[in-house]
Amino acid sequence: MAAALVVPTLGRWIARSGVLPLCRQPPAWGRAARRSSGLSLAPCRAFSNNKILVELNESSGVAMMKFKSPPVNSLSLDFLTEFCISLEKLENDRACRGVIFTSNVPKIFSSGLDITEMYGKSTEHYAEFWRAVQEMWLRVYSSNMVTIAAINGASPAGGCLVALSCDYRIMVENPKFSIGLNEAQLGIVAPFWFKDTFVNVVGYRVAERSLQLGTLYPAPEAHKIGLVDELVPEEKLQERALAVMAQWLALPDHARQLTKSMMRKAVLDRLVAHREEDIQNFTTFISKESIQKSLRMYMEMLKKKR
Amino acid sequence: MAAALVVPTLGRWIARSGVLPLCRQPPAWGRAARRSSGLSLAPCRAFSNNKILVELNESSGVAMMKFKSPPVNSLSLDFLTEFCISLEKLENDRACRGVIFTSNVPKIFSSGLDITEMYGKSTEHYAEFWRAVQEMWLRVYSSNMVTIAAINGASPAGGCLVALSCDYRIMVENPKFSIGLNEAQLGIVAPFWFKDTFVNVVGYRVAERSLQLGTLYPAPEAHKIGLVDELVPEEKLQERALAVMAQWLALPDHARQLTKSMMRKAVLDRLVAHREEDIQNFTTFISKESIQKSLRMYMEMLKKKR
Amino acid sequence: MAAALVVPTLGRWIARSGVLPLCRQPPAWGRAARRSSGLSLAPCRAFSNNKILVELNESSGVAMMKFKSPPVNSLSLDFLTEFCISLEKLENDRACRGVIFTSNVPKIFSSGLDITEMYGKSTEHYAEFWRAVQEMWLRVYSSNMVTIAAINGASPAGGCLVALSCDYRIMVENPKFSIGLNEAQLGIVAPFWFKDTFVNVVGYRVAERSLQLGTLYPAPEAHKIGLVDELVPEEKLQERALAVMAQWLALPDHARQLTKSMMRKAVLDRLVAHREEDIQNFTTFISKESIQKSLRMYMEMLKKKR
Repeated sequence: MAAALVVPTLGRWIARSGVLPLCRQPPAWGRAARRSSGLSLAPCRAFSNNKILVELNESSGVAMMKFKSPPVNSLSLDFLTEFCISLEKLENDRACRGVIFTSNVPKIFSSGLDITEMYGKSTEHYAEFWRAVQEMWLRVYSSNMVTIAAINGASPAGGCLVALSCDYRIMVENPKFSIGLNEAQLGIVAPFWFKDTFVNVVGYRVAERSLQLGTLYPAPEAHKIGLVDELVPEEKLQERALAVMAQWLALPDHARQLTKSMMRKAVLDRLVAHREEDIQNFTTFISKESIQKSLRMYMEMLKKKR
Repeated sequence: MAAALVVPTLGRWIARSGVLPLCRQPPAWGRAARRSSGLSLAPCRAFSNNKILVELNESSGVAMMKFKSPPVNSLSLDFLTEFCISLEKLENDRACRGVIFTSNVPKIFSSGLDITEMYGKSTEHYAEFWRAVQEMWLRVYSSNMVTIAAINGASPAGGCLVALSCDYRIMVENPKFSIGLNEAQLGIVAPFWFKDTFVNVVGYRVAERSLQLGTLYPAPEAHKIGLVDELVPEEKLQERALAVMAQWLALPDHARQLTKSMMRKAVLDRLVAHREEDIQNFTTFISKESIQKSLRMYMEMLKKKR
Repeated sequence: MAAALVVPTLGRWIARSGVLPLCRQPPAWGRAARRSSGLSLAPCRAFSNNKILVELNESSGVAMMKFKSPPVNSLSLDFLTEFCISLEKLENDRACRGVIFTSNVPKIFSSGLDITEMYGKSTEHYAEFWRAVQEMWLRVYSSNMVTIAAINGASPAGGCLVALSCDYRIMVENPKFSIGLNEAQLGIVAPFWFKDTFVNVVGYRVAERSLQLGTLYPAPEAHKIGLVDELVPEEKLQERALAVMAQWLALPDHARQLTKSMMRKAVLDRLVAHREEDIQNFTTFISKESIQKSLRMYMEMLKKKR
C-alpha cells in the first residue's frame, strides 16, 4: 500500500541486501538474525589480556568485552591501555559490528578511575594516566560499532562514564547496584566532558543536581531518570543485551554511524580541542597537597575496611 | 487583590483591548472567542491549489490547510511549492493569526519527501528540490502565526518534520498511525536541522536513540515521549485543534511572536548560515550510485506491493 | 570492601574532616548534622532591612531570607537593592554555607518585578531598575552557597525567576499557589537569561510552550513538569527545606561549587557579555508608548480590584 507504511521494513531489507557498500555486514549475519530473536554467540573467536576478555562471534558480528580485573575493575592505566587496544582491534575488524561491555567480577561493573594512579606519582604519570582516560572516552563515545553496556554491578564515577558513553544501557534490576557520577562525594569534580556526556543522557537539570550531590542511583532510580534504558533480572542480562544488539544491527551501518556522529560530534570535538588544557587542569588539581592528603586518608580508610 | 493573582487574566484583556499596535487581531475575534470554547469555522474564505486546500475563517483568524495529494501526501517539489505559496499568503494576510495543518487523505498525514524527486534526476533538480524542502521548514518553524499539526494518519520522515516544526501537535489516538524520523531505516541520514528540530521537541537522548534506530512511534508511544502533545479520537481532532488554537490566540501576538523567535532563532540561523553547503551535501549524497541503487530497489518493492 | 561501595560515605567524611582547605565548614556543623536529621535554627544571628529579614544560624551555617514586603513582595528597586546587599553579606560570611529563600507574606512568594518601576519613569530609572534585576539574578544563579527556594505562595514572573535560580525548589502543595514565567500574558517578553534559566530547569520543549503561553502552573502541575523539585504541606515547608539543605551541605563545598560553576557558567557569561545591550533593549521596549499605555491600563485595573 502506501509508501509510508512499508518503510519500517526497508532498513532490514537494506541491511540484508548489502546494497550499501559502506555497510559492514558479515555475510552470515542475515541468516543468524532470521534464525532467532537474539543472536547466538557461537562460533566464537576470543582474545584475552590480563584485565579484559573479548569474545567475538563472527557470524553475528557481536563482541562481548568482559572486564576481569578484581576486586573492583578499577580503571588503572594498564586496564585503560588494554581496553583501548581491544576496542581498536574490534573497531578495525570488519567482522565486528557491535560490542557489549560487561563485567566478569561479581557485583561490580567498574569502580571507576583507580585512585592509586592519582596518588603519590609524578606529574608525568598523572598526565599519562589522564590521557588514557580521555582516550578511552573518545574511543567509546565515537565508536562506529553499536555499543551496549550490560551493567551487572555497581558502576560509580568512571564506571558510570563507560556506560554513559555507550549507545544503550541495560542494568541488572538489583537495587543494591548503584550507578552515578559521584565525584563530588570524593571532593573532586567531574571534568566537563563527563558532564557533557551525562547531560546528553539525563538532561541538564538532573545532571546539575546529581553532579553537585554526587548522587549514586540504585538501579530502579537510575532507570526512572533515564540514566539506564532498561532493567532486567541478572540471569537475563546477556540474552537481553544480544536481543537489543540485534535490533540496532538491523539498521544499515552507514546511516546509523553518520547519525551517531552528527549527534555526538560537538561534544567530542570539545575535548579534542581542549585536550592538553584538560590534562594540565587535571595534573594541577590532583597534585595539590590538600587533594593528595584527602586521597591518602581515603585509601587508608579503604585498607582498614578490607 | 494582589497583582500576582490577577495577572493570568491580563493577556486576554490585552488581546481584547487591542492596546498593542503590533497585535494582529481581527476586530471580531474577541466576540468569536467569547461565543464558544472553540472557534467556529464559518464564515470562510477558501483557496485551493492542486495539492493543498486552504480555508480561512476571517472572524476567528484561523486557517485550515488540508493536504490533498493522494495516495500519501508525499512532499514533491510541486507540493512543497504550493505549500510555501499558501503559507506565505496566510502569513501576509492580517486576517490570519493561526494555521492548522491536517490531511484530507485517509490514514496518512504525509509520507514525507517524495522519493521520485530523489531518483534518476539531474544534480540541478536535486538542488532545487532540497532548497524547497529547506524553504518549507524555514517558513513553518519561523512562522509568526500559531501553527498546529492535527495529525490524522501516518507521519514518517518529512511528514514528521512538518509536525515537529509547529507550535503544537495533536494526533489521532489510533495506534496504527505512527510518526517519527525514520530516515536511518532507508539508509539515509536526517539532516542536522531535522535533528535540531527533533531535539528541541523530545530532548537529546530520545532523539539520539530514535534517529539511529529510525524509530516510528505508534501514536500512544509518540505521546509518551512528548513527540506529540496530546491524543484525541479521530472525530474530535478538528474541534480540539480549534480549541487549542483559541488558547494560543488568547495571548497578545506580539509577545508570543517575540518569544517564539527568541526560542527558535539559533536553530533557524544555523540552516540559513549553512544553506548552500547543506544543498551541496544532499546532492552529493543522493547522487551516489549506491544510494540511487538502493532507492531504485525500494521503489520497485513499492510497485510490487501496490 | 570494594572501593566503589564505600565511596558514598566519603563525602560526609571529607565534609567532617575539613581536609580540604577551600571548604567553608563552620566547626560545629558536623555535630549539628549528627544530632538531628535536619538542622536546628538556634542559636541565631539576625539582621533586617525594610523588606527582607535574614536569620543566620551560625552553628548550622544556614540562613533564612524572608521576604517581608506586603502586599505581594514585588521586586521594586528598593527590594532588589536590599536583596543584593543581604545576599552579599551572607556570601562573604564564612559562617554561612546555605540560604533558604521564603516569604513572610501569606499566600505569596513574590509577585515579580514591580510594575510601578516600569511606568512613567525616566530612561535612567528604567536602566537602573533593570541593572538591579540583572544583579539579583547574577548573584543568586552564581552563588557559592547552597540556595533553596521554599515557595509558600504564588510565584509568577520575576518571583519564579528567583526560584528557578536556586539549586533546589520546594513548594507548598496548595494548588491555589501557582508559579511560572507568565510575561507573555502581560504583552511583554521574558529576557533571554530568564529563558536560559528556565530551559535549564524544565527543558527546551516545556519552556518553549510555557513562555509563549505565559503559563502559570498550579503547584501540583509545576511539580509534574519539574519546575519545582518537590511538594510539601505548608506546615512542613521549613523543616523540609532544612533537611534538604543538610543533604546538600553534606558535600564538600569546594567540589560542589566548582561543579555548579561548570554547569552554569555558559549561561551566566552570556548575560555578563551582553549586559549593557540587554539594559538598552529593556529601556527601549518599556519606553514605547504602546507598552506604557498597556501598563497604565493594567495598573488602573489593579486599583479597581482593590
